[in-house]
Amino acid sequence: MTTARPVFRDIEGSVSAPAGFRAAGVACGIKKAGGLDLALIVSDAPASGAAVFTTNKAQAAPVLVSKTRLEASGGRSRVIVINSGCANACTGPDGLRTAEVMADAAARAVNTDASEVLVASTGVIGVSLDRQRVTDGIAAAVSALARDGGSAAARAIMTTDPFPKEAAVEVTTAAGAFRVGGIAKGSGMIEPLMATMLGVVTTDAAVSSALLQRALAVVTDVTFNAISVDGECSTNDCVFVLANGASGVTLGEEDFDLLVESLRRVCEPLAVGIVRGGEGATKLVTIHVTGGRNGTEAKQAARAIANSPLVKTAVHGADPNWGRLVAVAGRAGVAFDLERARVRIGDVELFSEGRPYDDRAPEASTHLQGKDVSLHVDLGTGGSGAARMWTCDLSADYVKINAEYRT
Amino acid sequence: MTTARPVFRDIEGSVSAPAGFRAAGVACGIKKAGGLDLALIVSDAPASGAAVFTTNKAQAAPVLVSKTRLEASGGRSRVIVINSGCANACTGPDGLRTAEVMADAAARAVNTDASEVLVASTGVIGVSLDRQRVTDGIAAAVSALARDGGSAAARAIMTTDPFPKEAAVEVTTAAGAFRVGGIAKGSGMIEPLMATMLGVVTTDAAVSSALLQRALAVVTDVTFNAISVDGECSTNDCVFVLANGASGVTLGEEDFDLLVESLRRVCEPLAVGIVRGGEGATKLVTIHVTGGRNGTEAKQAARAIANSPLVKTAVHGADPNWGRLVAVAGRAGVAFDLERARVRIGDVELFSEGRPYDDRAPEASTHLQGKDVSLHVDLGTGGSGAARMWTCDLSADYVKINAEYRT
Repeated sequence: MTTARPVFRDIEGSVSAPAGFRAAGVACGIKKAGGLDLALIVSDAPASGAAVFTTNKAQAAPVLVSKTRLEASGGRSRVIVINSGCANACTGPDGLRTAEVMADAAARAVNTDASEVLVASTGVIGVSLDRQRVTDGIAAAVSALARDGGSAAARAIMTTDPFPKEAAVEVTTAAGAFRVGGIAKGSGMIEPLMATMLGVVTTDAAVSSALLQRALAVVTDVTFNAISVDGECSTNDCVFVLANGASGVTLGEEDFDLLVESLRRVCEPLAVGIVRGGEGATKLVTIHVTGGRNGTEAKQAARAIANSPLVKTAVHGADPNWGRLVAVAGRAGVAFDLERARVRIGDVELFSEGRPYDDRAPEASTHLQGKDVSLHVDLGTGGSGAARMWTCDLSADYVKINAEYRT
Repeated sequence: MTTARPVFRDIEGSVSAPAGFRAAGVACGIKKAGGLDLALIVSDAPASGAAVFTTNKAQAAPVLVSKTRLEASGGRSRVIVINSGCANACTGPDGLRTAEVMADAAARAVNTDASEVLVASTGVIGVSLDRQRVTDGIAAAVSALARDGGSAAARAIMTTDPFPKEAAVEVTTAAGAFRVGGIAKGSGMIEPLMATMLGVVTTDAAVSSALLQRALAVVTDVTFNAISVDGECSTNDCVFVLANGASGVTLGEEDFDLLVESLRRVCEPLAVGIVRGGEGATKLVTIHVTGGRNGTEAKQAARAIANSPLVKTAVHGADPNWGRLVAVAGRAGVAFDLERARVRIGDVELFSEGRPYDDRAPEASTHLQGKDVSLHVDLGTGGSGAARMWTCDLSADYVKINAEYRT
């Protein structure tokens, strides 16, 4: 297939928007307060699978099980089962067995090999996951599987997210059209420690597992790994992709850039949605770093800014406090030249050539009073390293949410 | 001198408690709201000097000037002049010149070589420091120099610290007695970006500059570098030490451990005082990490815990949320074995051998309701790496303080 002039069009729906996928979200009693808490996503035909997992060394049982199964199947995955309300993390050998039971039950229910099932859990850490409820939930979800079930699945993986995150795109190419769809859940941690970030992406293009894995790594780096709510990385984070080929379009090595761009168009709005729905967030903050010695250093500086409580509180208060941006860039552990550095808030340059322009502060403050805020720091090394990250402001509500008693 | 059985005794006072030191704190109009804003500390006789400086790449003018002068003098320093209310950071060539003028004025006023003066500034970033006010202030401070001036100096370096930080110790050894005294200021950032941590330590022991520098590095590592309020590192941080020998006691290479311990006994309460006076802080949190592969990894894990907003908010809410400690240790980038890790809050073990002990949560919560809280994480590697850090809780007041408008 050639990639000449592909046309991307945002469409309704999510994981079940691509052909040959069905999804469901059901309530099986894991969440104490009730509500949807088990999601099932199934490709009717065999599919390729790829995944990225949390780098946290305290990995939850479902993370360990999904890694093992993906390796055992050689990158063939057809089924994803996810529960919310319990992270099945720090639960010892018994929790590991529960994650295996969960995967096996889903495999039996849809009549596929047990290695082709990926599992994930999200919710409170250190609490046992009830096996009976999960297996009952899987049985109910199989009955509920539907072509329009993506929305229910998106809601069933939420913990205290303020809204579900769904996105889908249709890509029209010379060789035909294919679709990519996805759901994600993020960081609403009114409960003590939600183990946190999950994403599922599907496509009806045919893509080998190896290519899918490489593309997912590239896309994750600039989407799910380019967001921060509070700098924490959970025990359960993972992103799964399934590709079943039902569109009749095959993407090969020569279509790598198209594949990356197609996945990015779904993953970026999901990732940004996680930030918008961050705990206590009132603003989406896009951080641009340029002038880094290389891309890695630019991203390191962007991450330091994204996680700086002083920057995040200044944004919350619409204070055009460029000094905090300079100070964080200077401590970020990357090359930084104070004399050549530049700082912009919105379109307003507040610091350059070692000199402040404080008379422009009111204009910058006006920008910061909006819901969508951009910060730009040039590190002044003259290098071409650049990076973008998304974060949210730090509000008193974040503290209130996270200081609440568990009991 | 032998170090057999030294006796340490806490005494009143601070930088002017050791013999041969005088200090002053005066008001010279740099702080808009008025109040003491210029501190002068002088050794009557020649003295050795040593210093540690911020690692921030956006270094303020006084940091650059102090580095240059300390090098030019070959480690001889007699005078320290510090203003508060303006950090003289991000102020370009003009600000650099101001810091030089400030040091030169102090040298002339006390009739010493200009290389023997160290300067520091703390306050708002990106604002010019008024030269006339500083030089007038230095003239006034010279007239006010007194043996009991340490307290005024401690108050003159405060920005919005809730209380001054002073400490002094007398060390009695077989060869005689000597004293160590110090002042520090920390992180009260009601104004937009106070550039932040300063410490001054004096001793009337005779110590070579080289030995003093080595001891300061060791002590700083376990005191001023082992605290965190919000993980930020400012453009102006520095700690100075002067040793003038006025006690008649000489500390040589063989007394290195005694020198370190003597300095530590002054620096630790100053450092802990900075945390207690942290922005919005309601609790002092001591973090113990053990079982690291080595000390560096243990400190890295302790720092990650100290800076975790989820841990700090849980402590604020007295929530015995051990899962957050496990999750942070797991993402800290150090070796971590979940099956062998252990977590204690106060004396209450809540997680070990991969299993939670949630029935003990009420007891842990009781501990967390106090003003002094301890958290202990064993990383489970079986190694002997250990570290201790101090931090404070994260409160809604921190957000309020730092979200306020500059204008």
